[in-house]
Amino acid sequence: MEWTREKRYLPYSKWDAETLLDLQAQAANSPYQMHYHLHPTSGLVNDPNGFSFFNGAYHVFYQSYPFGAVHGLKSWVHFKSTDLVHWINLGLAVKPDTMADSHGAYSGSAKEINDKLFLMYTGNYRDENWVRTPYQIGAWMDKNGKVSDKTVLFKNPDHITEHFRDPQIIEENGIYYAILGAQDKAEKHGHIDVWKSLDLKDWEEVGFLDLGSEPMGYMIECPNIVKVDGKVVVIFCPQGLDKRIADYDDIYPDMYIIADDIDWENHKLINPSPLHNLDEGFDVYATQAFNAPDGTAYAISWVGLPDTTYPTDDENWANCLSQVKKLTIRDGQLIQTPVPSMKTLRRGEEKVPNKLIQTNAGGQYELELTIAANQMGTLHLAANSDLSQSLQVKFDTTKGQLTLDRKQAGKQVAVDYGTSRTLTLPKQEAVKLNIFVDHSLVEIFVNDGEQVLTGRFFTEPQDQLITFDQETEHEGTFWKMETIL
Amino acid sequence: MEWTREKRYLPYSKWDAETLLDLQAQAANSPYQMHYHLHPTSGLVNDPNGFSFFNGAYHVFYQSYPFGAVHGLKSWVHFKSTDLVHWINLGLAVKPDTMADSHGAYSGSAKEINDKLFLMYTGNYRDENWVRTPYQIGAWMDKNGKVSDKTVLFKNPDHITEHFRDPQIIEENGIYYAILGAQDKAEKHGHIDVWKSLDLKDWEEVGFLDLGSEPMGYMIECPNIVKVDGKVVVIFCPQGLDKRIADYDDIYPDMYIIADDIDWENHKLINPSPLHNLDEGFDVYATQAFNAPDGTAYAISWVGLPDTTYPTDDENWANCLSQVKKLTIRDGQLIQTPVPSMKTLRRGEEKVPNKLIQTNAGGQYELELTIAANQMGTLHLAANSDLSQSLQVKFDTTKGQLTLDRKQAGKQVAVDYGTSRTLTLPKQEAVKLNIFVDHSLVEIFVNDGEQVLTGRFFTEPQDQLITFDQETEHEGTFWKMETIL
Repeated sequence: MEWTREKRYLPYSKWDAETLLDLQAQAANSPYQMHYHLHPTSGLVNDPNGFSFFNGAYHVFYQSYPFGAVHGLKSWVHFKSTDLVHWINLGLAVKPDTMADSHGAYSGSAKEINDKLFLMYTGNYRDENWVRTPYQIGAWMDKNGKVSDKTVLFKNPDHITEHFRDPQIIEENGIYYAILGAQDKAEKHGHIDVWKSLDLKDWEEVGFLDLGSEPMGYMIECPNIVKVDGKVVVIFCPQGLDKRIADYDDIYPDMYIIADDIDWENHKLINPSPLHNLDEGFDVYATQAFNAPDGTAYAISWVGLPDTTYPTDDENWANCLSQVKKLTIRDGQLIQTPVPSMKTLRRGEEKVPNKLIQTNAGGQYELELTIAANQMGTLHLAANSDLSQSLQVKFDTTKGQLTLDRKQAGKQVAVDYGTSRTLTLPKQEAVKLNIFVDHSLVEIFVNDGEQVLTGRFFTEPQDQLITFDQETEHEGTFWKMETIL
Repeated sequence: MEWTREKRYLPYSKWDAETLLDLQAQAANSPYQMHYHLHPTSGLVNDPNGFSFFNGAYHVFYQSYPFGAVHGLKSWVHFKSTDLVHWINLGLAVKPDTMADSHGAYSGSAKEINDKLFLMYTGNYRDENWVRTPYQIGAWMDKNGKVSDKTVLFKNPDHITEHFRDPQIIEENGIYYAILGAQDKAEKHGHIDVWKSLDLKDWEEVGFLDLGSEPMGYMIECPNIVKVDGKVVVIFCPQGLDKRIADYDDIYPDMYIIADDIDWENHKLINPSPLHNLDEGFDVYATQAFNAPDGTAYAISWVGLPDTTYPTDDENWANCLSQVKKLTIRDGQLIQTPVPSMKTLRRGEEKVPNKLIQTNAGGQYELELTIAANQMGTLHLAANSDLSQSLQVKFDTTKGQLTLDRKQAGKQVAVDYGTSRTLTLPKQEAVKLNIFVDHSLVEIFVNDGEQVLTGRFFTEPQDQLITFDQETEHEGTFWKMETIL
């Protein structure tokens, strides 16, 4: 089947329900499907949207194209949770049903305002010549999940190209600010564009956030600003960033800056840090973060990359979201940790002191390992019996190095961007790893969240051996993880 | 919208996907939706089907009409679990896609045979004059959830009317037996018809199971035979049963007989008990039971009744399944208890010693109460502040009576069949109640499963007060219950 433009933008009403039910069953039956992470009911998911707290519960949406593993006509699918771990799928919430979002209800954010959830997102509109206008749209969701009153708030100003999207709505001292990813017309560089409004109706541009003198690639996507332990953290995806400015391996990076504060009116960060990668693994993009009512900062990411194919494309579905991470700052460094309720998914605690950790791990588990100082070797995950196929975690706690290697991990993904990711550890020190595996997804928290490695992998589903390649001084605990959906 | 016959039997391919996505969102967003019981993704669910153990996991399906709260063109939707509590929705599995099931893939059962799951069910076929033929169909599901090789095994023999359905497949000493609900042509009485086969291909009728001299109404639906603690338990729904034979309150009863054994070749129960109601509440029907590989008998029911409307019909969805119950026999009596894993859903244990138990229970909880001997009063569940609206549990542990009363419980259901259900307790003894509430569903286990009262109720979702009407000597524990889907 060829995914022509016409087919990708076919209205949902022109697809038949039997096809959708078959696609839903196909996605659900896949052995690569995740079961304790938000995943597609059918088709493709990408960016998390509207991550927020409203009406006594957390909410998150994701970008969805329900009819295949392609970037077609996008909508928002809605999830609700009281603990950021157990989610209810509330289904299609923001549809591409007005002129302004007729070619996709693209990414955006949400904030509780006056007992409703205000959604601010980009409507993708294309005219008959396929020329795009990015409309920034406001809408309101009530407590029954009904979205109404879609209004176009503004579109790209003259100095910004059609690449102008992903608004995050923020309130600061009674003023609403929105930050958007933007590309300027003059230089075609990426920017975070700041807008403001007093009433959510009349908006004016404040200006590009000053990110220093170096160009931030050709476009910034999905900018987010959150407060973390008295600091300001800016998370964003600078597409085409020169690797001399900040090194990264994926096709597009997801990066952050820590600053002491932000001066909104002068669109400046106070004492900003250099750029850092948010994740040291393979597939994290479009992270969305927000401050809960108690001030805690939480982040959730798309695990998937633009312009990248995945093995499940053949099964007509693709991608998932990461687990929610709590953000804190320790010694000036951003720390990402699982939320406390993740522990409620643990079942059947088992100490694993030996080289052989599990012969049949079952594809859905957390493995906590503390590997002693001065150890070198390889941990094989999802391995077959002769270890010729596995997802490998290579460690050298003498030199201080950790590598996630998916070269032997079955079906390959994005090999042009490398098959391994390496990070630096303190030398001659023990390292603590919390390894979450959910079928085809791995998330490794290093030293209680100082660094995180995330990635998809596609070994044979029945290969579920976990073992070190050699005797390794370590302490370990293994839990099965419960299914949430 | 009028549900014409044509509309109800429209192929799924003639419905559009946007309508289905909207129906799925509407069902998910309903405040009456269950969140730790199997419920409709959209439309109507009825009988559990194919309850079985296969490929290392439990499986259950339900009858589904995805496009509204009516009995339209039916299919099977598939769920899988390792603990009978946390289920994965694997979507549409058995479609009405052959001539023999063109008017509905109706109810049936499943059994692991030679590394596949054998499905045996009734295909509903109607000709151009709407004359029905009930085809009994065999099909095979592989480990990837794919159903294939549908074959018509047999249809109603000459002495049985078109009312011939719901086969349960059983193996006994290398012989396959199937029991079906049937109506004879001569007397138009209900029967359990026994068939047998050596190869699952050639089937011959053994005869009607001898259920005594009294007629079992005009039709028996959903017969099941399971072994429980050395006894044989026959569960079935005798529609139109004369209440002088066995009393019941619902429009149609779901009943059981306990026998010492069954003589398959002579289609006779050895030393059968009288008929008993399986559930003392309101809405239990079409219970399906099976013996797991370790011999344990489990049962799951449709919570919903034929020919009955429910308030959520207005929201285009209806009904749910009960929790799975483990069946045992104690002192000759059938005992139904929650499976052990139900306890993994408990969160935040709280002792509730006072008259006022919760001001805001939240709609999803288990309440364990032991009410002392010689107490009389009313427990209000889902109550508003002046107790004018609530689901009432009235108790008199002196006389030994317990009543579930939904007369003041908001929107009414099937009032022609009474608004309360009363059961008898031991006199002057304490009573233990495990009350499971899941939004609009209540399941009350009395004295560790000696009796069960199940029912739907439709109070205002925000009314979540739980209180006794007066000081009552009791011990109580309250848990929130976790969301599973």
